[in-house]
Amino acid sequence: MQGQHLHYLASGTIRSQCEDNLPTRLKMLFDGTAEVVRTYTPDCAAVEKVFVNANPQSTLLLGQARGAAICAVVSDGLPVAEYTALQLKQAVVGYGRANKNQVQEMVKRLLNLTSIPSSDAADALAMAICHAHGLRTLNALDKLAPQAKHGLHLRRGRLIL
Amino acid sequence: MQGQHLHYLASGTIRSQCEDNLPTRLKMLFDGTAEVVRTYTPDCAAVEKVFVNANPQSTLLLGQARGAAICAVVSDGLPVAEYTALQLKQAVVGYGRANKNQVQEMVKRLLNLTSIPSSDAADALAMAICHAHGLRTLNALDKLAPQAKHGLHLRRGRLIL
Repeated sequence: MQGQHLHYLASGTIRSQCEDNLPTRLKMLFDGTAEVVRTYTPDCAAVEKVFVNANPQSTLLLGQARGAAICAVVSDGLPVAEYTALQLKQAVVGYGRANKNQVQEMVKRLLNLTSIPSSDAADALAMAICHAHGLRTLNALDKLAPQAKHGLHLRRGRLIL
Repeated sequence: MQGQHLHYLASGTIRSQCEDNLPTRLKMLFDGTAEVVRTYTPDCAAVEKVFVNANPQSTLLLGQARGAAICAVVSDGLPVAEYTALQLKQAVVGYGRANKNQVQEMVKRLLNLTSIPSSDAADALAMAICHAHGLRTLNALDKLAPQAKHGLHLRRGRLIL
C-alpha cells in the first residue's frame, strides 16, 4: 500500500508434496513463507482465522500448517493480524457470504489485475486488502484527529476502544 | 547417548502466557525450542505423535503448537522422528498402558536421576529414550552384520524393511 492506493506486488501459493512426511512438509511451508518475507520485506502479515473442520485429523493438519506459516512470520519479528473469512468477504466484497468467484473478481478489480487470480491467491490478496483497509482507517483518523485515535486499536478487523 | 549409555543432559518445559495472543504464544514456543537446539546442538529430535482431541478447538491449538515446535527443529536441519504415547510407554516401561507415575519412575531409573522429573519433562525424556533405543538397535545391527542393515530403517519406533 502506498498512501491511499493499493499496489499489487506479488501473490502465490506454497505447496508441499503429499508423499513427504509431516516434518518435511512443515519445513517447506516454513521455508517458503520465510523466503517471501525475505524477498518482499513486509511490515506486517495477516492470516485467516480458521474454524475447526468437521474432520478432526484435518483440523490437526490445518493447525500444524498454520503454526508453521505464523512461525515463519513472527520469527522475523512481524506483527500478525487475524481475520475470519466473514470479515475478509465483508471488507472486499461488502457481503460476508460472498462466494469464491466474487472474491476473485473483486480482488482483480481492486488491484487492477489483468487476469483473475487463482482462488487461493485471491483469498491471500483479499486478506492483505482487508488488513490494509483497517490500517488506512486508523491512519486517516490519526491525521484528522490524532487525539481521537488514543486508545483505539484494530481487533478482528474492527476499530475498537 | 554415549556408546551404549544414556546420559542425562537437561530437560524442561516451555510455557507461554495464556493472556498473550496466538502468534506471540507460537513465537515463544518457536524461539524457546530453537534456543534449546542452539544450546545443546542435538543430532536429531523426536516428538509425540498426537491423536485428535475430543474438543476441536483444542485440537487446532495443539496442531499449531506442534507445528511451531517442529518448525524450530527442522529449520535447523534436524531430522524429526515421531512416536505415539503407546510406543513411548512400551519402550520405557515395557507396557503400553503404563500410567504417568510409572513413566516418571522409569525415566528416573534409566537416567540415574536424583529425583522424579515433572510429568511433562518425563514424557519428553521418555521420548528421547524411545528414539535412542531404536537408534541403538540400528547401530548394533550395523556392527554385527552391516549387510543386514541394508534397506532397514526406523519407522514408528520399529525397525522395518
